[in-house]
Amino acid sequence: MIDLCLLGCGGYQPLPYRYLTSLLVRCNGSSLLIDCGEGTQIAMKQKGLSFRQIDTICFTHYHGDHIAGLPGMLLTIGNSERMEPVTLIGPKGLEHVVRSLCVIAPELPFDLKYVEITENEQTFKAGSLQLKAFKVNHRVLCYGYSVSLNRTGRFDPERAKANNIPLRYWSVLQKGGTVESGGRILTPDMVLGPARKGLKVTYTTDTRPTRSIVENAAGSDIFICEGMYGDDSMKQKAVEKKHMLFSEAANMAAQAGVGEMWLTHYSPSLVRPEEYLNNARAIFLPTYAGKDGKSRVLNFDDEE
Amino acid sequence: MIDLCLLGCGGYQPLPYRYLTSLLVRCNGSSLLIDCGEGTQIAMKQKGLSFRQIDTICFTHYHGDHIAGLPGMLLTIGNSERMEPVTLIGPKGLEHVVRSLCVIAPELPFDLKYVEITENEQTFKAGSLQLKAFKVNHRVLCYGYSVSLNRTGRFDPERAKANNIPLRYWSVLQKGGTVESGGRILTPDMVLGPARKGLKVTYTTDTRPTRSIVENAAGSDIFICEGMYGDDSMKQKAVEKKHMLFSEAANMAAQAGVGEMWLTHYSPSLVRPEEYLNNARAIFLPTYAGKDGKSRVLNFDDEE
Repeated sequence: MIDLCLLGCGGYQPLPYRYLTSLLVRCNGSSLLIDCGEGTQIAMKQKGLSFRQIDTICFTHYHGDHIAGLPGMLLTIGNSERMEPVTLIGPKGLEHVVRSLCVIAPELPFDLKYVEITENEQTFKAGSLQLKAFKVNHRVLCYGYSVSLNRTGRFDPERAKANNIPLRYWSVLQKGGTVESGGRILTPDMVLGPARKGLKVTYTTDTRPTRSIVENAAGSDIFICEGMYGDDSMKQKAVEKKHMLFSEAANMAAQAGVGEMWLTHYSPSLVRPEEYLNNARAIFLPTYAGKDGKSRVLNFDDEE
Repeated sequence: MIDLCLLGCGGYQPLPYRYLTSLLVRCNGSSLLIDCGEGTQIAMKQKGLSFRQIDTICFTHYHGDHIAGLPGMLLTIGNSERMEPVTLIGPKGLEHVVRSLCVIAPELPFDLKYVEITENEQTFKAGSLQLKAFKVNHRVLCYGYSVSLNRTGRFDPERAKANNIPLRYWSVLQKGGTVESGGRILTPDMVLGPARKGLKVTYTTDTRPTRSIVENAAGSDIFICEGMYGDDSMKQKAVEKKHMLFSEAANMAAQAGVGEMWLTHYSPSLVRPEEYLNNARAIFLPTYAGKDGKSRVLNFDDEE
């Protein structure tokens, strides 16, 4: 199960009723936060979400509207009695930017681990989740993220027998363990059928449309994508500022074949995004306007 | 005229319905902001206040809840088309702290002027306002601020005549100008009666009670003072954390003989400050619980 919460859906500036774009992904007692602009901690409090469980914070890039809330967030996590390290993941420059911001949070009760992305595409573990960063196209170095929860195959006793696995090891192998027995290494694939469909969420903001987004969003249950401007007449501005139109996001969603798309990172000038939703829905019908606090629990197919 | 707005009234952490303590003082088209925690810019937007007019930002100290909102605030001021410099005033370390935080706001369209407080008490000009910083007693170096709008005496033609001021200079001297005439320097005091009562506001937070507060708050129309804890049984915690009880704030207000007191910088654990208001009112009756957005226009006595 993955529990998603789009904490805010604004771009550039936090507004009274629209916090900055940020996504909280919860899975098996561990939380992963992507982007942390000014006010993200307030948005979390508004939803009653736990700070103590935040194990990982990822940044798409270091413009203020995606990271200015970090020192306050770390202080509040510190105040939640967390002692375990928090892993920070982001483009090159991560440690310099975070250490500079932490001039006002010099004594945290937990360690920070810095993981700088060095490749165009790079994968990480975050608790039970697989995390993949992929480079997008903004005015500064910027990444999108896919978060996946993989699902192993069903237990297959015929396969276990065919592989001569002693009965006493079936359970441990089924649960993902590895066993050494009689000079053999027994692994889970020896007792499991083919992997089943897992869960996948892709988040990208502050970018022009790119092939990397289409490729990495492919197969996502939910694709959360910036929609800075709703009106197609804003195309030139979108190109200049390296942002996106609703219709451009929808084209990518259609190409990637995602389950549904949530738009986010609206321009402060875009007061009622839903008025432009048809510009996206004409291209990709299951498009929804992200809203502060929009949440979804994703379950494996037969575990609804 | 001074126009005050207590933008928030929280301490430690911004909450969904309580922004962090910050005061905006507007006078003659110039705005002065004291403290700028995370969310202060959202509080300003909620009240529809102009960012372009912020000429001065003062800091009491550099704990995150008083300064974490600065980079976002500066970016938003920059977005308001301001080109004129913004003056920053605060305790020693100001430039280091601000430059570190501005790692995410590297290209502002205006200059920052840094004014570090070097004395226990120090005065500054901020537009038409007189600003005085005075040292208080917190876990780190911390200052309170008094903001005054002085008022000259009435125009006194008898005095002008007695000083042999030519009629043609009366108006310019009355308006505060200085004139050289026939080898004499003519100054406003030569045509004005005694100074009249001006306006004064004092703001102090994150401190134990001090003599400096009582002395500097004396004669204030409004005294805005931290009230971290309402319940007198929290005394020991207040002493340890170097904060204040409502009753301690009220004692200072009474000693200073202020017009009225607004409490602010409540502990997040203090959900309903008004329930403890009587602890202050028993000592100083005109005590009010500060609320987000609490505003007041102060006029000279006969200009209501």
